[in-house]
Amino acid sequence: MNIIDIINKKRVGLELNKEELEYAFNGYLKGIVKDYQMSSLLMAICIKGMSEKETFDLVDIFIKSGDVLDLSSIPGIKVDKHSTGGIGDKITLIIAPIVAACGVVVPKMSGRGLGYTGGTIDKLESIKGFNVSLTEEEFINALKTIKLAVTGQTANLCPMDKAIYALRDVTGTTSSIPLIASSIMSKKIAGGADKILIDIKCGNGALMENMDDALKLREIMEKIGEYYGKETICEISDMNTPLGSNIGNSLEVIEAMDVLHGKKGELTDLAIKIATEMIKVSKDITVEEAKNEVIFAINSGNAFKKFLEFVKNQGGDINSLVVSTNIETVKATSAGEVKKINALNIGKLSCSLGAGRINKEDTIDYSVGIVLNKLVGDKVNIGDTLFTMYKKQSEVNPLNINPDDYYEIK
Amino acid sequence: MNIIDIINKKRVGLELNKEELEYAFNGYLKGIVKDYQMSSLLMAICIKGMSEKETFDLVDIFIKSGDVLDLSSIPGIKVDKHSTGGIGDKITLIIAPIVAACGVVVPKMSGRGLGYTGGTIDKLESIKGFNVSLTEEEFINALKTIKLAVTGQTANLCPMDKAIYALRDVTGTTSSIPLIASSIMSKKIAGGADKILIDIKCGNGALMENMDDALKLREIMEKIGEYYGKETICEISDMNTPLGSNIGNSLEVIEAMDVLHGKKGELTDLAIKIATEMIKVSKDITVEEAKNEVIFAINSGNAFKKFLEFVKNQGGDINSLVVSTNIETVKATSAGEVKKINALNIGKLSCSLGAGRINKEDTIDYSVGIVLNKLVGDKVNIGDTLFTMYKKQSEVNPLNINPDDYYEIK
Repeated sequence: MNIIDIINKKRVGLELNKEELEYAFNGYLKGIVKDYQMSSLLMAICIKGMSEKETFDLVDIFIKSGDVLDLSSIPGIKVDKHSTGGIGDKITLIIAPIVAACGVVVPKMSGRGLGYTGGTIDKLESIKGFNVSLTEEEFINALKTIKLAVTGQTANLCPMDKAIYALRDVTGTTSSIPLIASSIMSKKIAGGADKILIDIKCGNGALMENMDDALKLREIMEKIGEYYGKETICEISDMNTPLGSNIGNSLEVIEAMDVLHGKKGELTDLAIKIATEMIKVSKDITVEEAKNEVIFAINSGNAFKKFLEFVKNQGGDINSLVVSTNIETVKATSAGEVKKINALNIGKLSCSLGAGRINKEDTIDYSVGIVLNKLVGDKVNIGDTLFTMYKKQSEVNPLNINPDDYYEIK
Repeated sequence: MNIIDIINKKRVGLELNKEELEYAFNGYLKGIVKDYQMSSLLMAICIKGMSEKETFDLVDIFIKSGDVLDLSSIPGIKVDKHSTGGIGDKITLIIAPIVAACGVVVPKMSGRGLGYTGGTIDKLESIKGFNVSLTEEEFINALKTIKLAVTGQTANLCPMDKAIYALRDVTGTTSSIPLIASSIMSKKIAGGADKILIDIKCGNGALMENMDDALKLREIMEKIGEYYGKETICEISDMNTPLGSNIGNSLEVIEAMDVLHGKKGELTDLAIKIATEMIKVSKDITVEEAKNEVIFAINSGNAFKKFLEFVKNQGGDINSLVVSTNIETVKATSAGEVKKINALNIGKLSCSLGAGRINKEDTIDYSVGIVLNKLVGDKVNIGDTLFTMYKKQSEVNPLNINPDDYYEIK
């Protein structure tokens, strides 16, 4: 077997067998297959696709490249949740305490942000003292005692996915549904949960830009879950508009707490929908019963209490959140109704303020970000504040933003 | 501009503009674009193709990456010939002296073999003392004095093509018609000839495996020639069967001399056809007139004299050719007529005897190779010798070849 023949086979659109996939991917991790050969193969996969069998095989290869977390010592059903990433997506911070407050264990491994979409781990690090690097023992102990833990990495999970993801990121090969599905599902399965809920973001601020692709991603992820005996439910949610009002790390933690305190809106509706699915699939009850449990967890204050318990349990001080006081507002130059808020452009702007990383080595300023003062459907007069930028304290120059790049008002 | 955007654009099948191609390819030569990024782009090009405009632009970028040979000091029309490579293809050794004997200048830059197809430079090196590394001055002087020179490399021609070709070779990205066309034509144009004759080999022993691809390659190469004001004629010739009887370096030089001495057969017919085209396009005369000149050059002995003059002029001793005396014959196990000789398998066998390189660092044994004793159409009885292997002198074991892997007899 040799890598050139394998690449050529995929280049002309043929199916690779398990041995060929193992040769290529395991060989890459061992350094036998070079990065320029793997990137060529990844591009052929991006364009020619992968069959279901190839995708299942690749997930298996990813899982076997590292450890698999054993959560069997923790009583009850364990449910994991993953979002494919979007602008202002702080859903994990809201639903994890809700679901745990309803008695279901939530073992959550999250990532850092890269590019315009934030990462849950970065958001939690805006809380002073919060430990995002639990050991496997600490992670399992937290799940046993308070049913909820969020960590960046415990065991050596899917190191191959890490290597391949880093290569895809710099070779224009991120947009492949089977590769995205393999990457997400291998980590979720290795993470040890019994049930998996995936929130597929769809729109101009997300990896999946159209509904057609989102549906294909849902289909293959649910099939992978079924193949591995892990019930997997995918929700598709809109990401043409930022999610909620706040974008930026501290600002998003604050908004998550607002929702747990009873704030209404689209963000709350989506959080309730996803939490309901997680409870339903975990407890095997009806949607109505599950939704009632979720609403009760919020209204009773149990979910918010769980959030505080969770922050404290991982060493965080919730009173430490800092939001910049160096603000600049962007005003409407026309009147009408907000028809659209461009998620991608808001994400880019937030990133440029310092809330995200453009390169892996960039550092984040947790205190900066954007608050949307007007949301889609709101009426606007000339001179109304559309959104507020929380800039770095050191930034002295005005940014002179053109509102039309972000808001469509008619 | 950034390379990821450029790769993504080609991945979805869009046309790249000149600036984008320059950014990617010049960036690669400078080390700004990494090899894993270039291989990803090359795979996208392989699958999605390139427009005519993209191909013209790429040829220009390749040419401008190095020097362009100026042959204007040499009087008369200069015609170059290139073969896309096949098993037993010693046509250059035959037609170059014929054409020069007819008074047309033949400035020929050739390559070494890699894989199953041999290279003219390797074949010439089987002649002791033959200098295949002429300086630009030596090359031009030879052309002025005897109208014929063959060299491996003179000036720094198309260094980018060299870099890209080496990467394509190890990343499964050789099979792209626009990339093949750009690679060949950029070198031919930079080589300074006025007219270009390309012999496109088509069949199982060649890069172009089917007629459809060969026709596409012809079309784009002729268009590139037209775009650069260099009249380009492409012949398509069969490469399902090895060309001529001899495969291997010394053996091919010997067969080329046999043809110049008047040996008949398919190889001779093809050499006459190509030489005729070269004379016709260079002198602007009819096919009949050109063919008459070619036949006269052979029959008069002028072409053979030119060959000897050429070998001597580049320091070679034609009496030095060595053919191994360690031979093994392969006999027919069935009777009938030879329907097919598998060019690819014969090429692989010759290579494994030591006549070619599998890896770049392999050394060639000039004395080894294969002589086909029966050609397509010949009648065969059981026990007749089909072909003879000239093995390394040091090889003591019989190879016990199965004739059915090479000959189809019915």
